[in-house]
Amino acid sequence: MNIDMIEAAADRLRGHARVTPLLSSPFLDEIAGRQVLVKAEALQHTGSFKFRGGWSAVSALDPALRARGVIAYSSGNHAQGVARAAARHGAPAVIVMPADAPRLKIENTRALGAEVVLYDRAHGDRDAIGAELAAERGLTLIKPFDEPQVIAGQGTCGLEIAQQAAEAGVMRADVLIPCGGGGLTSGVALALAARAPGLRARPAEPEGFDDTARSLASGQIERNARLSGSLCDAIITPSPGAITFPIMARLCGPGVVVSEEDALRAMAAAFTRLKLVLEPGGAVALAAALYHPEMIEGDAVIAVASGGNVDHALFCTALERYGEGA
Amino acid sequence: MNIDMIEAAADRLRGHARVTPLLSSPFLDEIAGRQVLVKAEALQHTGSFKFRGGWSAVSALDPALRARGVIAYSSGNHAQGVARAAARHGAPAVIVMPADAPRLKIENTRALGAEVVLYDRAHGDRDAIGAELAAERGLTLIKPFDEPQVIAGQGTCGLEIAQQAAEAGVMRADVLIPCGGGGLTSGVALALAARAPGLRARPAEPEGFDDTARSLASGQIERNARLSGSLCDAIITPSPGAITFPIMARLCGPGVVVSEEDALRAMAAAFTRLKLVLEPGGAVALAAALYHPEMIEGDAVIAVASGGNVDHALFCTALERYGEGA
Repeated sequence: MNIDMIEAAADRLRGHARVTPLLSSPFLDEIAGRQVLVKAEALQHTGSFKFRGGWSAVSALDPALRARGVIAYSSGNHAQGVARAAARHGAPAVIVMPADAPRLKIENTRALGAEVVLYDRAHGDRDAIGAELAAERGLTLIKPFDEPQVIAGQGTCGLEIAQQAAEAGVMRADVLIPCGGGGLTSGVALALAARAPGLRARPAEPEGFDDTARSLASGQIERNARLSGSLCDAIITPSPGAITFPIMARLCGPGVVVSEEDALRAMAAAFTRLKLVLEPGGAVALAAALYHPEMIEGDAVIAVASGGNVDHALFCTALERYGEGA
Repeated sequence: MNIDMIEAAADRLRGHARVTPLLSSPFLDEIAGRQVLVKAEALQHTGSFKFRGGWSAVSALDPALRARGVIAYSSGNHAQGVARAAARHGAPAVIVMPADAPRLKIENTRALGAEVVLYDRAHGDRDAIGAELAAERGLTLIKPFDEPQVIAGQGTCGLEIAQQAAEAGVMRADVLIPCGGGGLTSGVALALAARAPGLRARPAEPEGFDDTARSLASGQIERNARLSGSLCDAIITPSPGAITFPIMARLCGPGVVVSEEDALRAMAAAFTRLKLVLEPGGAVALAAALYHPEMIEGDAVIAVASGGNVDHALFCTALERYGEGA
């Protein structure tokens, strides 16, 4: 993995992925006690940064292989990213999803043209299911994070942050990144190290699912005790990846960890102050920026708002509980 | 009013106003039966396009006059736009607001540094109140729409649409614009006529407050029977302006008119498909694009989503009523 792969992915994504804006509000600055910049990846195609990695991986495939199709397993956002990227390349896509994934994510993935295969998250083995289908049909597996071309695609978000932060006059800041398996965090970390060395990538996770923060602290890959039961379903993985973890260990600052309630409150703040819809997992970095200023260094902080695929019932729970989110 | 004034306003706004993205979703295209592009002005500073006109007018003032202060009357979005623009210029701002304006808009206007003077919409005379305060303190009145520098500022939104539509390959389309007094509609119409002659500006209004559509149809300024009682409070005015109407009569296509329910449904669609928060008045153009395809000509339509300053209770009413908004 290196910056050249990320630049090459950026070339392939140009005109296909959206350059998402870096938003701000004086009201958020006041809550945080420092300047807050929010990278609005919920505005990316399919509602999350995952479209970047999906497009990067599908577009990097040999055309003959791509024509046979791709397969992915995902709690939802990676599924939509791969489904749309495959459809736009005219390639079939099979998505293996947990049966308890949000209904909206399952429906969207189907509507984007993919075949959805559901499995039981507690008892099924998605790797085995995926491997069998892949062998049967000659599909290429696109892993959700531990895959160089996926990491390169997510890294394009970091290239944009480097440029947009400079335009905003911010040269030194912590960059907080919602972290599941570490594809986005490691990709952004690589991009920032090469293009904006004053910006430091740091993973953000929900309490109880802070495998990456603990792994960075101990220096070895740690696992979560539970694999489900979080509102932040989009960023729940057993552990950081074999490819992503060494990158994060080399380049990232310490992880930040927030409660689910912090994430819901940050969703309300993004609604009121940015007019941006976030899902809980997509709001953990903003939550740390707003409600845990003691975890952060410097006069400015950049929070990646990584996704907005949330059911309306949960969204309204957040708004009703936290009102204007101040 | 001419394109040079809009270009000059764009120069003054550069680096201060946000270039808002032109969003899209295959799901919205499917609902509308044609390509839909959404100009996300809810992401503008202060949550609506009004910041453009506020900044344009405040920045165009003679510095000595500006230092004495500005005054505006507004149902909310213009107030916030002027308040922030004045504060950033170090100028005092007095805002005359109806006492029944959404609480959030009143609070935000105060928090942005303005002095808020409330009046009774049914019985008070905001023009008289404003004129008296202006004379007393030497304040310059910044009218909400019938003011050349405000129209020029709103027109910068049209310059961006012209460029972004061309980048998306859209050269011919109706551009639907939420319309109150016509500042945004006339400004965008002027910009499109000069820079994208294949794009036709058309005002969008809620039923019962369709003064501009009726004025365009009759060729003379028509008035609304009621002056309040709409969820679309941001775009309720008695009639199009003396400056804005002749511009619209010369350059705009026929107005489109939607129900409040259409607007709420479009808010739900923007939540689900764009991750964008809209207020009812800011959603009327998108509502026409999605739910009234028979009113529109061509293979593509551009809807300006003009504002997102909505209380969470009303927003959740829209989501609960229309779910995924399809």
